[in-house]
Amino acid sequence: MAVSIGAANREAVDRLCRARPAWTGVRPAREALALAPRSLLHAGPPIAWERMCAPMRGAVIAAVLFEGWAKTPADAERLAGSGEVEFAPCHSRGAVGPMAGVISPSTPLLVVEDPVNHTTACTFIADGPWGHQLRFGAHGPETLAGLAWVRDVVAPAFQKVLELEGPVDLASLMAQALAMGDEMHMRNAAATGLLARRLAAPLVAAVPDRAHLEAIMRFLTRDNDQLFLAWSMAAAKAAAHAIDGLAGSTIVSAMARNGVEFGIRVAGLGDRWFTGPASLVEGLYFPGFTAADANRDTGDSAIMETYGLGGLAMAASPAVQKIVGAKSFADAVATSRSMSEICAGTNPLFPLAPLNGEGTPTGIDIRKVVRVGLAPAINTAIAHKSAGRMIGAGIATPPLQPFVDALVAFGDLHP
Amino acid sequence: MAVSIGAANREAVDRLCRARPAWTGVRPAREALALAPRSLLHAGPPIAWERMCAPMRGAVIAAVLFEGWAKTPADAERLAGSGEVEFAPCHSRGAVGPMAGVISPSTPLLVVEDPVNHTTACTFIADGPWGHQLRFGAHGPETLAGLAWVRDVVAPAFQKVLELEGPVDLASLMAQALAMGDEMHMRNAAATGLLARRLAAPLVAAVPDRAHLEAIMRFLTRDNDQLFLAWSMAAAKAAAHAIDGLAGSTIVSAMARNGVEFGIRVAGLGDRWFTGPASLVEGLYFPGFTAADANRDTGDSAIMETYGLGGLAMAASPAVQKIVGAKSFADAVATSRSMSEICAGTNPLFPLAPLNGEGTPTGIDIRKVVRVGLAPAINTAIAHKSAGRMIGAGIATPPLQPFVDALVAFGDLHP
Repeated sequence: MAVSIGAANREAVDRLCRARPAWTGVRPAREALALAPRSLLHAGPPIAWERMCAPMRGAVIAAVLFEGWAKTPADAERLAGSGEVEFAPCHSRGAVGPMAGVISPSTPLLVVEDPVNHTTACTFIADGPWGHQLRFGAHGPETLAGLAWVRDVVAPAFQKVLELEGPVDLASLMAQALAMGDEMHMRNAAATGLLARRLAAPLVAAVPDRAHLEAIMRFLTRDNDQLFLAWSMAAAKAAAHAIDGLAGSTIVSAMARNGVEFGIRVAGLGDRWFTGPASLVEGLYFPGFTAADANRDTGDSAIMETYGLGGLAMAASPAVQKIVGAKSFADAVATSRSMSEICAGTNPLFPLAPLNGEGTPTGIDIRKVVRVGLAPAINTAIAHKSAGRMIGAGIATPPLQPFVDALVAFGDLHP
Repeated sequence: MAVSIGAANREAVDRLCRARPAWTGVRPAREALALAPRSLLHAGPPIAWERMCAPMRGAVIAAVLFEGWAKTPADAERLAGSGEVEFAPCHSRGAVGPMAGVISPSTPLLVVEDPVNHTTACTFIADGPWGHQLRFGAHGPETLAGLAWVRDVVAPAFQKVLELEGPVDLASLMAQALAMGDEMHMRNAAATGLLARRLAAPLVAAVPDRAHLEAIMRFLTRDNDQLFLAWSMAAAKAAAHAIDGLAGSTIVSAMARNGVEFGIRVAGLGDRWFTGPASLVEGLYFPGFTAADANRDTGDSAIMETYGLGGLAMAASPAVQKIVGAKSFADAVATSRSMSEICAGTNPLFPLAPLNGEGTPTGIDIRKVVRVGLAPAINTAIAHKSAGRMIGAGIATPPLQPFVDALVAFGDLHP
């Protein structure tokens, strides 16, 4: 090998820590990712239509209807299973998608660029405030109206604001939000508020139509503390993308779930996936739902933990502890401390006050995961297995085998 | 005595803890407080024009010019010293004012009501974003333009939003903000953001003029993380007002400074003030300024500590520790712990995660202050002694003598 694993991993941690992702645009996937007609991206490692879970199938149906490739859900399902639609992971295109994570050519994407590492990443703006959402597999008229509204009203308004104001520095916004109790995976309340503060006045200048302005302002300010998750995910992906293919490094460059399988990619192993069964999430359920209703762990949002936030930054967020069911503040601090044991460094951009200002554990090292026998803690939402909606939140513990398999592959590559 | 001190103090803590202040209106002081013509309110204990510090004199000049009682600063100063203007503490009217804290009949006031304890309190909206501010003693054309803009543009817009939306629950907003790292005296970043989120969409409906809407949105979202301090102060005063005159109680009902003297009032001693010299603030100065430029401690904002926030809630706020110059997170947690020694209870509305979810120390007991020999820690801004501006922030340690004098007076009253 040209460089030692240690040196490669230090470089990986450096790249993750020096990333300064900024939101630069909103563009349809066909432009931003050159996504071809009749092709769809999905969350997690590769999976064929036949093996997809119900939430992902629901999201595919929503996307097919949204694109106008079919007129009814039944037709959409037939088309999706016909082989005429091409499926690929979001991660294969430098994108990420929450939950089912389905992106189609017309989906407006947030474009996030890191001027330090020269990377770009994209994700979609979560659907409008109406009822059930594509990412949970909903595909009814309200979901489709929400998707159209985001495409026709929200996306152009956001793009106009960026043209008027220039890029929005997400790194500093996220650093502020962490100090305000967000771990940026299951709690984005402060970050959503900071984003709203950043956009509110420019939106007045950008949106001439008064009814649209009021609706966008409501979307941005009133309906959803998790709105910013899309920006968090794109920022984290832009950072993690900088280590994709970094020779000799055993740092995890992606963790993602498709609702059936959990998979990782490793910096020094390029775009190979190492997979195992997606776990059942330990969590808290909304009233009326239980673990029996839950789909297995799903979504690309584990990019947050890949970047050192979410479960790894649990100590930053007294509030998220209640959302995901951590036992106590001490328990959350202990989680962040234990995550240090499987990471190669810490990120000074995100100091954890209860850990005396030490940065969040950053750069999950597959060697340490295997040696310590401890998988990353992933804070996550829980999707209903068939009803097209969110039913709770919790902590997912992914299987260790993909880390072991990746380490074996790494050994084979570096004999 | 009809009730024991212990029982009276338990009742005092109960009232402070059950208060649920809500923002219900914006009205000129002449209406909200029935403030008579040619009368002004000021921060802190009573003080005559002759003894006022320069920032307070500056604010009085600003108020006289704002009211049109004089045309030039020199005339305003002559009028203020002529005996024709009546001065009284804000606290004497159930109001509070930050720093110099000068309120005149036309000042638009935030009206905050607590439906649980049936109290009302008021304070002014800090001046516009232009340059130096009345509360620091500025009285130039920019300051006066800012005051007029708040009166003519901001105040009617806010009032209209409240008419459209109903009261804004400040108790729950502040509880959220505490969990997001605000101690609500020198850090109101999260609370300001939450307020902006609450008002942004309704403002679109409330303000027909597009230029005004954009300017208000900027005022609300872009210029000042401390904007919410006015709402915090009025909420804290509404809560503390519920114990004013509570017989037999040794709990502090007000702490305030006029830039010359620090004073307290005690629940069981009604509206009597016990005063001592205002302290010099230990703090951090903006570049170019030193302690030699600082005015003595000033303002009614110590109502935040009276209510159990600010310095008493230091452990909630890793960020404020840097603003006011606390040594470390551990030091801030230690401050909150030590404040428990001089308080009669804790407020479950404001749980402190680093103290295992225990509420903020609440209800400063003059008996404990005297016995322990420890004064409340007051987080505060620092005013320049003559230049009409803020020059830093720090922690004020008020003199113990007023607490001793109050305890002696309490003993005389309950022989």
